[in-house]
Amino acid sequence: MADDFTMSLSLTAAVVGTGFIGPVHVEGLRRAGIAVAGIVGSSAEKSRAAAERLGLPRGYASFDEVLADASVDAIHLTTPNRFHFEQAAAVLRAGKHVLCEKPLAMNSHETAELVRLAKTSGRAAGVCYNIRFYPLCLEAAERVRRGEIGEVFHLAGSYSQDWLFHPTDFNWRVLAEYGGELRAVADIGTHWLDLAQFITGRRVESVCADLGTMIPQRLRPRGGVETFSGKMQTAQATEAVRVTTEDYGCLMFRLAGSGRGVVWVSQVLAGRKNCLRFELAGSRQALSWDSEHPNELWIGHRDEPNEFLIRDPALLSSAARRHADYPGGHNEGFPDTFKQLFRSFYTYVAAGDFAAPPPFPTFADGHYEVLLCEAVLQSARERRWVDIPEVAT
Amino acid sequence: MADDFTMSLSLTAAVVGTGFIGPVHVEGLRRAGIAVAGIVGSSAEKSRAAAERLGLPRGYASFDEVLADASVDAIHLTTPNRFHFEQAAAVLRAGKHVLCEKPLAMNSHETAELVRLAKTSGRAAGVCYNIRFYPLCLEAAERVRRGEIGEVFHLAGSYSQDWLFHPTDFNWRVLAEYGGELRAVADIGTHWLDLAQFITGRRVESVCADLGTMIPQRLRPRGGVETFSGKMQTAQATEAVRVTTEDYGCLMFRLAGSGRGVVWVSQVLAGRKNCLRFELAGSRQALSWDSEHPNELWIGHRDEPNEFLIRDPALLSSAARRHADYPGGHNEGFPDTFKQLFRSFYTYVAAGDFAAPPPFPTFADGHYEVLLCEAVLQSARERRWVDIPEVAT
Amino acid sequence: MADDFTMSLSLTAAVVGTGFIGPVHVEGLRRAGIAVAGIVGSSAEKSRAAAERLGLPRGYASFDEVLADASVDAIHLTTPNRFHFEQAAAVLRAGKHVLCEKPLAMNSHETAELVRLAKTSGRAAGVCYNIRFYPLCLEAAERVRRGEIGEVFHLAGSYSQDWLFHPTDFNWRVLAEYGGELRAVADIGTHWLDLAQFITGRRVESVCADLGTMIPQRLRPRGGVETFSGKMQTAQATEAVRVTTEDYGCLMFRLAGSGRGVVWVSQVLAGRKNCLRFELAGSRQALSWDSEHPNELWIGHRDEPNEFLIRDPALLSSAARRHADYPGGHNEGFPDTFKQLFRSFYTYVAAGDFAAPPPFPTFADGHYEVLLCEAVLQSARERRWVDIPEVAT
Amino acid sequence: MADDFTMSLSLTAAVVGTGFIGPVHVEGLRRAGIAVAGIVGSSAEKSRAAAERLGLPRGYASFDEVLADASVDAIHLTTPNRFHFEQAAAVLRAGKHVLCEKPLAMNSHETAELVRLAKTSGRAAGVCYNIRFYPLCLEAAERVRRGEIGEVFHLAGSYSQDWLFHPTDFNWRVLAEYGGELRAVADIGTHWLDLAQFITGRRVESVCADLGTMIPQRLRPRGGVETFSGKMQTAQATEAVRVTTEDYGCLMFRLAGSGRGVVWVSQVLAGRKNCLRFELAGSRQALSWDSEHPNELWIGHRDEPNEFLIRDPALLSSAARRHADYPGGHNEGFPDTFKQLFRSFYTYVAAGDFAAPPPFPTFADGHYEVLLCEAVLQSARERRWVDIPEVAT
Repeated sequence: MADDFTMSLSLTAAVVGTGFIGPVHVEGLRRAGIAVAGIVGSSAEKSRAAAERLGLPRGYASFDEVLADASVDAIHLTTPNRFHFEQAAAVLRAGKHVLCEKPLAMNSHETAELVRLAKTSGRAAGVCYNIRFYPLCLEAAERVRRGEIGEVFHLAGSYSQDWLFHPTDFNWRVLAEYGGELRAVADIGTHWLDLAQFITGRRVESVCADLGTMIPQRLRPRGGVETFSGKMQTAQATEAVRVTTEDYGCLMFRLAGSGRGVVWVSQVLAGRKNCLRFELAGSRQALSWDSEHPNELWIGHRDEPNEFLIRDPALLSSAARRHADYPGGHNEGFPDTFKQLFRSFYTYVAAGDFAAPPPFPTFADGHYEVLLCEAVLQSARERRWVDIPEVAT
Repeated sequence: MADDFTMSLSLTAAVVGTGFIGPVHVEGLRRAGIAVAGIVGSSAEKSRAAAERLGLPRGYASFDEVLADASVDAIHLTTPNRFHFEQAAAVLRAGKHVLCEKPLAMNSHETAELVRLAKTSGRAAGVCYNIRFYPLCLEAAERVRRGEIGEVFHLAGSYSQDWLFHPTDFNWRVLAEYGGELRAVADIGTHWLDLAQFITGRRVESVCADLGTMIPQRLRPRGGVETFSGKMQTAQATEAVRVTTEDYGCLMFRLAGSGRGVVWVSQVLAGRKNCLRFELAGSRQALSWDSEHPNELWIGHRDEPNEFLIRDPALLSSAARRHADYPGGHNEGFPDTFKQLFRSFYTYVAAGDFAAPPPFPTFADGHYEVLLCEAVLQSARERRWVDIPEVAT
Repeated sequence: MADDFTMSLSLTAAVVGTGFIGPVHVEGLRRAGIAVAGIVGSSAEKSRAAAERLGLPRGYASFDEVLADASVDAIHLTTPNRFHFEQAAAVLRAGKHVLCEKPLAMNSHETAELVRLAKTSGRAAGVCYNIRFYPLCLEAAERVRRGEIGEVFHLAGSYSQDWLFHPTDFNWRVLAEYGGELRAVADIGTHWLDLAQFITGRRVESVCADLGTMIPQRLRPRGGVETFSGKMQTAQATEAVRVTTEDYGCLMFRLAGSGRGVVWVSQVLAGRKNCLRFELAGSRQALSWDSEHPNELWIGHRDEPNEFLIRDPALLSSAARRHADYPGGHNEGFPDTFKQLFRSFYTYVAAGDFAAPPPFPTFADGHYEVLLCEAVLQSARERRWVDIPEVAT
Repeated sequence: MADDFTMSLSLTAAVVGTGFIGPVHVEGLRRAGIAVAGIVGSSAEKSRAAAERLGLPRGYASFDEVLADASVDAIHLTTPNRFHFEQAAAVLRAGKHVLCEKPLAMNSHETAELVRLAKTSGRAAGVCYNIRFYPLCLEAAERVRRGEIGEVFHLAGSYSQDWLFHPTDFNWRVLAEYGGELRAVADIGTHWLDLAQFITGRRVESVCADLGTMIPQRLRPRGGVETFSGKMQTAQATEAVRVTTEDYGCLMFRLAGSGRGVVWVSQVLAGRKNCLRFELAGSRQALSWDSEHPNELWIGHRDEPNEFLIRDPALLSSAARRHADYPGGHNEGFPDTFKQLFRSFYTYVAAGDFAAPPPFPTFADGHYEVLLCEAVLQSARERRWVDIPEVAT
């Protein structure tokens, strides 16, 4: 792998958003060998400061300036959720490729519209479900695809964090009007659901959900609070606000074809910083993975010892090896998933055949996740199973 | 602890049942310092053989012979589920103490009747939910009780096995007419639910369940098959039988007072031999435990390092230390839980105050588990939440 | 396995010693189906109290009374090290079988004499290296024996505890005049060395050692202190004593034939309660095991995923399965190793062929361990490699 | 941390070497915000190909061309060991900063000379002991420094790999004439020793070593073989060569002041891909870390539960937090250590005060590692303890 683990594709990107995840994109782009023309924040001043801090050529004065930059091939959207729809549409209309942070937009009307736009745009349009790009998640999907797992019996897992554990933890995402009525399921549950569907190759077709708000009142700082920075913030004036979005959610589900499952998510589980787990039972083998130990895949057997597959390119399928840059035992982590997703996206862009099946999460995937979220919300309110509507593809 | 980790109470037991779990009881009784007068199986011949194999004084000719043995203080029932009701009632009527394997009986009419009988019997009546007696499960319960966890936010877990993984795996439990309509949830799910309620100190008051039979047809040996021995059985003639009991079950639930949760169980998860896990999120701390590593309790913290508490008597609360015989690092396991449950039961018997709250799972607990199972079955059939009826206690 | 996991051999034992390990023997004997006639401590009073506490028929007035008890077939010695020689010799001279706690005696003159005595006695004579009897240690040995590991490249490991971590921790073992000049290596290192030699089937033939006393002065309670009870002791008057025995030891070694290795031991490693680990590299596979997770054996591979073998009788070799009573996932622990060692010992006794190779650690093994300890001491003092003298077998 | 996890320092680097580790440097430099002017390999053609593959502006025709490039501030040497001395000297003489892969040179005469040169050069001169820059290794060092561990009792560990497991595995490093007489200890053992000395803040002052060549004959491909690529190589013509460098090494050591230890290394341990572990026992706490799970630090306690510290910036000391870019649970890995080492190096370069203590491994550290290697070799040959000579600093 030493020969190709970085690359050059002569493509240029720009990043919209200067919060936690914007700089993650900049770093991933650099590692993937993609030039980064610049960055834009919520003001020209913020853009300039971010560009300087990150060593980027340009801090754009406005989003429109990015759209107008002819040197830019693709635009990464890392802005708050409520801007995604308008910005993604504008990027496609400007004739540029787009990679949007999840969720793709605020509701399924918007996401359906974006799917339509993407289809006719002749451009690549992806959503940043980066977890898929852990090499051992790619390997799991490949093993299901090759039939090594057999029939999918059931699938369970969780995604838990503790960054909203205290009533004093605050972020715009807890407010329904900023982040949407669904929070934990939308923010982290959709990562799990995307991964589950990617690995099994099947859609979640019905859900039965339970949602709970453990901390119904939080203290909002009178200034703003960035994602993931709250844990180290200093004392400041606060005001109590009522929170209606869920801290905890659980959904049982059925997969199209066969297979049942369950996932629960929490943002108030003390000690779990960012822990995604799944356990997949098949008729021939089982698989289990934990994002806290992302370089190991457990393979369960009934009649012989269980296995632990280390992320060693020499031991992976070719589909996974392509995204495992470092030798076995040289652990890769969360930052590496962005490099790999970007490599996948830009290799597709460079190939130029936009009728080919995209090897990354698409706007159609992003749309389906929003449909799932809407079904979860309805199920929790009505306390019953809800089917996800059929999607024309 | 060295001073009291075995004991003598001058009490005598007899064991009914010679399958997998009968000898486990014999061993646990010996370790607890309780004399074992004898054992009885499904025939006088089987009883004699078992007594000889186990080095017991007596193989009873019949269950009635056990009831008539004046030297016997308490009787352990380790027979198939469908005999529990009649036998437990008979033991109590014979004026002896009774410890019954779970489930207590086949339905809530039977279990309600047994609760009534037990209440008026002036005898100790317990159900073998042994998992509670892992010292770190006792410790978890104590930490909840002392308020260290804070408010119970949510609770999740699983219980998975693979001994029924193949269509050729067979046991009387898979047949509804022998083991009841509910299988995986009843066999192993109830262990989890008992543990969850024991640790949180709260009843599960409503459930929403999904049940699946992954292997709807199994091959039944024309001879009989014992629990847990199927994995090493040799070839023999078989016949196909239709199976309607669940291989997989999942239930979301609400705890009385506060707290939500979810548990899934499977008997077809390749590689998990007998794996019970829970993860409990509280408003101050979180706890997590895995029966595959029963000597470690994970304690999650938001603002300081997480902890791993080793089952070291020097580090446990007195409630748990009482049931931790060996020093830290000298691992105890599944067999030890029986010794501890029996010690708890017989210490209570020896004390003789049957109005005192029993420090072991009671017939009332066993009754509630059966109510839970009935609610699970109804919920899965009607695809909705079902409340568990109030129990007079 | 359910059919034979307890047994009856119509043999009777007595236990000498009422400290931590004496009651462990009583429990193991009961589980192994061996009758326990009684126990003897350092006074008739202590014997009686122990017998009552443990529910044993008899508290002997003296060691001689045990020797004189015609009902007793075998005697277990769990007394302080300095009594082993005289007592073991007396047991053999009394025509009884003997199972002695390690070390077999205080020096190689004594152990050589005991080997001679045992050889001519026509009795079974074993040393309690119980760690061998973890089923996965038996499995490891079997895999080496069958050639699955290939040539033994190297072997490393450790044995660490923290019960002597504080200067206030005290036990007779820290004093050279009571426990011998070597402490940590003799107490726990010999367990590791026995295991290493058992698994590889090879003798350690030369050593190069380093020994360190981290806490050269300890506070001795004016009363006595029992092993492993110090951690929970209450305040009492103490006096400072100089300690010359090692808290920490390390030895590099060569195995006869081929194979090198290293082991270190510590009794002052905070947080490790009783942790024995080994990692064996062979020319075909590697094996690793950790007594904190005794039900898992890691099997390392270069060209395929590593394996984790769970202690599941269905997955073990017949040699190991014989000593794995409980089904896979039903964890066994430290107490179970005594049951298994005793089963091995008494099955051999019952068979009556004392010319057959004993399936348990013998006095010859115990002698070799003492020779090893003497070589370790010499090596550490002279700061060079020392060979272990050839032993006539 | 989101605010500063990438940076711009307006400094430019060039990389010498196009093997496995050269591109790792390129990626790390990009992430650290350092411009990479170009790369040079063993021929102009190789340089051009590497530059194109990596998306770098320039493939230099020769090493001299790099020296002559006025735009270049610092040069990274990732060439085979035997070129380090000459190249490092040339870089310093050219007035540029230098970061050299380990080992710094082939013997202590060369490294002593490089230390002298560096001292008078007025330039920054570092050696790539990147393991130090795992945030939890920085944290461990900080905890020792702050006295939280107490007195250092002892320290043990290992570094194991399997990439040279088969006789058909080949690399220039196995040949004494290319890589030096010492191999496993020099290649990976020095990483461990650097880390041990960094964390304890003490020099290893004497050693007693054992070295073994398990595979004394290997098959050398008639073409060349790159590091870490052998595991996936295709069949080609080979010739048998005699190997004298060690596959396995073990050394006991003493730390200056107090503290003993032991480390073993192996390149033939099947299943361990690249596994570095240490366990440090102090008089107040113990620490343990495993590079396979680099985001967790075990903290051992005698009188309270052990802790697992997750690499969460909110839980780290400021010294470690500075090098932890991603939030807790967002795992970082091996590639990130290079970014952090480079950030440390270039921040120092940018500050311009070369009299300040360098916050990265220096040429003096690299020199000491070579002295250690020479002592190891002498000790193994003479089978005795050897002291490391005093170094003027």
